[in-house]
Amino acid sequence: MDLETVVKKRRMCREFLDRDVPQEKIDRILDLALRYPSAGHTEPQEFIVVRDQRVKENLAQAALEQMFVAQAPLVIVVVSDTRRSARRYGERGVHFFSVTDGSFAAMLILLAVVNEGLGACFVGSFYDEEVQEVLGLPEAIRPIGIIPIGYCAEGPREFPRRSKAQIIHRDRYGSG
Amino acid sequence: MDLETVVKKRRMCREFLDRDVPQEKIDRILDLALRYPSAGHTEPQEFIVVRDQRVKENLAQAALEQMFVAQAPLVIVVVSDTRRSARRYGERGVHFFSVTDGSFAAMLILLAVVNEGLGACFVGSFYDEEVQEVLGLPEAIRPIGIIPIGYCAEGPREFPRRSKAQIIHRDRYGSG
Repeated sequence: MDLETVVKKRRMCREFLDRDVPQEKIDRILDLALRYPSAGHTEPQEFIVVRDQRVKENLAQAALEQMFVAQAPLVIVVVSDTRRSARRYGERGVHFFSVTDGSFAAMLILLAVVNEGLGACFVGSFYDEEVQEVLGLPEAIRPIGIIPIGYCAEGPREFPRRSKAQIIHRDRYGSG
Repeated sequence: MDLETVVKKRRMCREFLDRDVPQEKIDRILDLALRYPSAGHTEPQEFIVVRDQRVKENLAQAALEQMFVAQAPLVIVVVSDTRRSARRYGERGVHFFSVTDGSFAAMLILLAVVNEGLGACFVGSFYDEEVQEVLGLPEAIRPIGIIPIGYCAEGPREFPRRSKAQIIHRDRYGSG
């Protein structure tokens, strides 16, 4: 599907059909996700592909009880090995680049999901330490996003957005 | 161009031809960037499109003297209005969601650039306060990425990447 169509079709999905997702689709999604850019080629990202129902439920709990996370047939959790970012960039690596690089990978997943005819949601509200415990993450591995994936059961919706005039500036802030 | 091709062609470009970029291309890039997802539809992102040579040079200085930033015919700076994230998410809004949402928008720019036959680079190493001063950003507006854009003068290169076995886990961390 061409880039423009994919970007325009993408929206967050929070309700999924009770239908499994073939592994080939997941493999293709991961193939694209793995092309994420990273600061200084540090490649801090790792991915936990969760199909186990108990683990999904524990993730949903850790995500402030957003139980739709457990309803999806599978969940990809994007995590950052902050040591890789820190080795090159120190504190900015841990607090900034681990998040930018994780978000790049997550954005690619969200687009690849649409390309496969599926729906997904980026869930960023969660207790980091609970997610670490649920997934057995070492302390230096920081969760960035929990992404439930499946066949979307929601119809398309459009949300109004801020206008271009409000958010695009020329040369300096405030000059429209 | 189809999504897979765009993702696979994308790479950071740090050297640009001395050739202007038509405004229609920039408009189409911004049209896609504006479809970025944001936590709770808070839409914290704004974009400064810089063509002024002096401003570009000041940005390059603020970015630890990465002077190729000034060599590009134009630069898009992605900034986050942290007040919009903070209103809904407090501290996590300021430090986490402002970065995830900015990175989503930046990733869309990087892909849209490829789709237009151009090259770009995400520059995340800079002094926040210097960038704020150069662009006249209010204190609550945080720069997330400086993206020089132009016709790329570099040939394609491939970097070795970490293997799938190293970075994809099943259900729990460490289970390949």
